[in-house]
Amino acid sequence: MNYKLLGKILGKIMILEGILMLAPLLVSFIYREPFSNKLAFIVPVVTLVALGSLLQTFKPKRSSVYVKEGFALVALVWIVMALFGAIPFVISGDIPNYIDACFEIMSGFTTTGASIITDITLISRSGLFWRSFSHWIGGMGILAFVLIFIPESEDGSAMHLLRAESPGPQVGKIVSKMKLTTGILYLIYLGMTIALFTLLVIDKPLPGYEDDHVLFSMLATFGCAGTGGFGFVPGSMETLSPYAQYVMATFLIFFGCNFGLYYLILIGKATDIFRSEEFKTYWIFVFASVGLIFVNLITSPGAFPQDYTAEETFRHAYFQVASIITTAGFSTTDFNLWPMLSKTVLLTVMFTGAMAGSTAGGMKMSRIVIAAKGAYINVRKLINPRYVPKAKFEGKSLEKDTISDVFAFITLYFFIVVIVVLLLAFDPINETVSLVCSDGGEYEVTHGFFSNFSATVACISNIGPGFEAVGPYASYAGFSWFSKIVLTLTMLIGRLEILPVLILFNPKTWKKV
Amino acid sequence: MNYKLLGKILGKIMILEGILMLAPLLVSFIYREPFSNKLAFIVPVVTLVALGSLLQTFKPKRSSVYVKEGFALVALVWIVMALFGAIPFVISGDIPNYIDACFEIMSGFTTTGASIITDITLISRSGLFWRSFSHWIGGMGILAFVLIFIPESEDGSAMHLLRAESPGPQVGKIVSKMKLTTGILYLIYLGMTIALFTLLVIDKPLPGYEDDHVLFSMLATFGCAGTGGFGFVPGSMETLSPYAQYVMATFLIFFGCNFGLYYLILIGKATDIFRSEEFKTYWIFVFASVGLIFVNLITSPGAFPQDYTAEETFRHAYFQVASIITTAGFSTTDFNLWPMLSKTVLLTVMFTGAMAGSTAGGMKMSRIVIAAKGAYINVRKLINPRYVPKAKFEGKSLEKDTISDVFAFITLYFFIVVIVVLLLAFDPINETVSLVCSDGGEYEVTHGFFSNFSATVACISNIGPGFEAVGPYASYAGFSWFSKIVLTLTMLIGRLEILPVLILFNPKTWKKV
Repeated sequence: MNYKLLGKILGKIMILEGILMLAPLLVSFIYREPFSNKLAFIVPVVTLVALGSLLQTFKPKRSSVYVKEGFALVALVWIVMALFGAIPFVISGDIPNYIDACFEIMSGFTTTGASIITDITLISRSGLFWRSFSHWIGGMGILAFVLIFIPESEDGSAMHLLRAESPGPQVGKIVSKMKLTTGILYLIYLGMTIALFTLLVIDKPLPGYEDDHVLFSMLATFGCAGTGGFGFVPGSMETLSPYAQYVMATFLIFFGCNFGLYYLILIGKATDIFRSEEFKTYWIFVFASVGLIFVNLITSPGAFPQDYTAEETFRHAYFQVASIITTAGFSTTDFNLWPMLSKTVLLTVMFTGAMAGSTAGGMKMSRIVIAAKGAYINVRKLINPRYVPKAKFEGKSLEKDTISDVFAFITLYFFIVVIVVLLLAFDPINETVSLVCSDGGEYEVTHGFFSNFSATVACISNIGPGFEAVGPYASYAGFSWFSKIVLTLTMLIGRLEILPVLILFNPKTWKKV
Repeated sequence: MNYKLLGKILGKIMILEGILMLAPLLVSFIYREPFSNKLAFIVPVVTLVALGSLLQTFKPKRSSVYVKEGFALVALVWIVMALFGAIPFVISGDIPNYIDACFEIMSGFTTTGASIITDITLISRSGLFWRSFSHWIGGMGILAFVLIFIPESEDGSAMHLLRAESPGPQVGKIVSKMKLTTGILYLIYLGMTIALFTLLVIDKPLPGYEDDHVLFSMLATFGCAGTGGFGFVPGSMETLSPYAQYVMATFLIFFGCNFGLYYLILIGKATDIFRSEEFKTYWIFVFASVGLIFVNLITSPGAFPQDYTAEETFRHAYFQVASIITTAGFSTTDFNLWPMLSKTVLLTVMFTGAMAGSTAGGMKMSRIVIAAKGAYINVRKLINPRYVPKAKFEGKSLEKDTISDVFAFITLYFFIVVIVVLLLAFDPINETVSLVCSDGGEYEVTHGFFSNFSATVACISNIGPGFEAVGPYASYAGFSWFSKIVLTLTMLIGRLEILPVLILFNPKTWKKV
């Protein structure tokens, strides 16, 4: 283990986190919040910068990073980020319990959007900002960003680090230089973020929140860009104008695309996008899901309490699919009350997720496509043992090992779901939770198996809300501290796509070779 | 496609099914049932024997079977068996609807035990016999049985057929001659069946069913041997004596073991059994599950309506785990009312199932072990790219292809679960179902997502009852005809372990090569 180099990189990230925390501190000054809210950020900023600088004094003997070190470092970085990122909430009193605060900020960085906050109106403006800003930070990955600024001589096997943090089965370099690649991706991310913010800020303010319009437009933008899903007013995105809802849904779908495709547009190869199988599959899933839910809702009035017009039906179906398939988890309506078919469609796209190389979570469309092709090859081989598979994916021939890795990933994914559901079952919760409907009426849900199951899927896929007791109008507050820790780790496992976390906690990783 | 040979083998099986139907016909005579009940069996017996004999006139040019033909034939055989096996229920009026009857008998042959019957007391004795007898027939596989009697010159690549029908990732020949192997396994099956029947028939009869004691002992035996789970009195096995419940649970666990292990006992190599990793894993799962449920139930009185003594708690935990892990699905109590942890433990062993080479369903312990080892290899390889896996399973080195096949199987398994849950969601059911508790009290369950999900898992794993609206005190009667057909195929997919059914319905199978 190259502890010194790992320590040095970790230190750089701590300093960066400290710098990023200056933004919510600024918000605190703008809103003239009490001193405790400013202290909430000053304390961790000072601590992070001091500790981080101390780590810079390390003089590593070796300037490269092994693969296992890369994976372990990535997992460690994210855990350290969450441990420090939780401090402001505790000091300001927004979330007094440290475990709750860790859950909340891990949910932010991993762009999950699951929340333990039951009354969002009690959270300070700076707290809201830090919470949503963490989505934007976590969306593209923090290590990748830091790598841009590490001198060539010290970046070690940077590719390993990028591979460990970046979602999807393969990382394609779009240009030969890795740092340039990363830089371009970040610029695209920034550009799209600014475009979305502009489109949202020109909308009329939310009634009663006229002074918060710029801030709230930023929060909505952060949540979309990172496909996170933290709300900032009661009822998630329900109170936003239809215009804002359409804009957000559309940008969510854009942020769920592989960012490499936007690079193709920039260099004038836009038509190449439509050759991407993953891109096509993604849109088929989006269209099919919106279509199914729209038809299901429009043909079954009375089967659910909401009373939508045709336009509303389409808008909610479109928004909800965009929000769930990109694993953001925003809501414009209480989809927990929808009929079974619509709920099941949403649960299906919870599993699939959007494209690899996007800010979205889930298993990723490319894995679904590769697994489907792999399964087909298996069947064909049985029909004809002499069958030589010529399967391709994205124009390249699909290697046996790639298929096997995807199968292994999916198997592990489901194993972890089963284990987490089992761990959650130890929580002696079996209560009835009261929820307030969008029309003001109250209804009750049971915290049953479906709650635990959908909480697990929502956390490992980095979505946020599930169904029943963790539905869009509920929160994760009811879980015990044990379940919260389990779910916090589940979010991290999902965001880092399983292996880094397993490697971090594998004792063999820490053995001297 | 060697249609003539396939037709000939299919014909033999039809004749065999006709002969097997003489048993319920005999029951009908013994119980002096009305003529319609006798006709119910006479009509299909005559049809099956006539059609089957007609198929014997085929003169195949080639005497061997390709792998794909083997797989397709196995799937076809099971479908034909169900289509004819359903006829008696329709003629006798026990189950007037043909789709319902197909569901019921497919549930029988696949040893699922899911039922659409809402009042078991209305079913004729001969109907009950045929229903439970189908478990015993399906348990070991019907094709394997027929192969014993096909002359060497005609049995083609019999191994392919056996492989397609037999559960588990590998089929081991215990002795060099395949027919001898199959014959020995059937003798072990028969011997254990007789032993269980003897132990049950010496028990005192059920109160009120004194005249049915021999019959009912047979039915319970069939259900255990095939790990099926059809009941014959209201309340599944609840009314049986504690002695009978202990005997059944123990034999269920025995029938969930690989039959090859019993052969080891026969040839005096009993100690070799404990070298089997699958055997050890199976027992760890059994002990851990019984332990967890026992502790959960004993420490949370009041969290569920039943009021057990310590002995009852142990007995129900033991019986329920034995019944679910072997995918039989009998019940001695309404486990749907148990606390979340106990329910989740049962749901977990629903997925795993028991050992390969047994009569049980599910994914099989060996696959779980192989997948776990495969996942570990994946992680190790990332930690150290030069890592050469030396994984072994059951003493043999674990090949890359075996692991990959297991991963593919598990992926397909979960894909099918997702697709079936999605198809069931089209069923516009969203009703409250009234159930009668064991203590006479009524309670209501909603036919919600958990019902559909557990119905899917219970069918693909060949268990039978699920939770909520398909719980142990409920039935599958509430589903639409479409869902019933979907679930009927799901049971078959589960019993034949996916591939044969996919191959049967793949157009490429039927293309001329």
